[in-house]
Amino acid sequence: MRDPKLTDAAVQAALALRAGWSLKDGMISRTFVFADFVAAMRFVNAVADAAEAADHHPDMDIRYNKVTLALTTHDSGGLTEKDFALAAQADTLVTVD
Amino acid sequence: MRDPKLTDAAVQAALALRAGWSLKDGMISRTFVFADFVAAMRFVNAVADAAEAADHHPDMDIRYNKVTLALTTHDSGGLTEKDFALAAQADTLVTVD
Repeated sequence: MRDPKLTDAAVQAALALRAGWSLKDGMISRTFVFADFVAAMRFVNAVADAAEAADHHPDMDIRYNKVTLALTTHDSGGLTEKDFALAAQADTLVTVD
Repeated sequence: MRDPKLTDAAVQAALALRAGWSLKDGMISRTFVFADFVAAMRFVNAVADAAEAADHHPDMDIRYNKVTLALTTHDSGGLTEKDFALAAQADTLVTVD
């Protein structure tokens, strides 16, 4: 079953809870900055594990020590709870050791 | 010491040896397609290890099972031998186990 697409109001409410994330072209994205490439890759792998477990995969752009995640739910044609759940999880993974 | 920027002729000669790579906006790039996200991430990590060892880091864009690498040498203001060396190495890492 497809996840229901969130209403604009629900998107705004969910976005208000996620500092650093912004909405553009039907996706939410955030750029995370790390000390170096190795720290950035550690984060990428932590997000990848979470993504695979959730079967929901963000776009990930790696620029040396910067990682941009972008999320949408293609099957639903827009943003769903799954996007905000994975965004919240990514936010907890910033300081992985 | 900065790596010397390659001449246009040298870039074209090096590019001719790298099937799948193309030149755009002073960078060389290639999109690699894998069976799934896990295989794509395995490649990303193999490239990351090679990049860290060479101290030369490609831009990496992950789209589920597709990974696009883009290379240039910012310090030299263009393409250098380092870019083509890492591109060649990435090509050997496609079928990592």
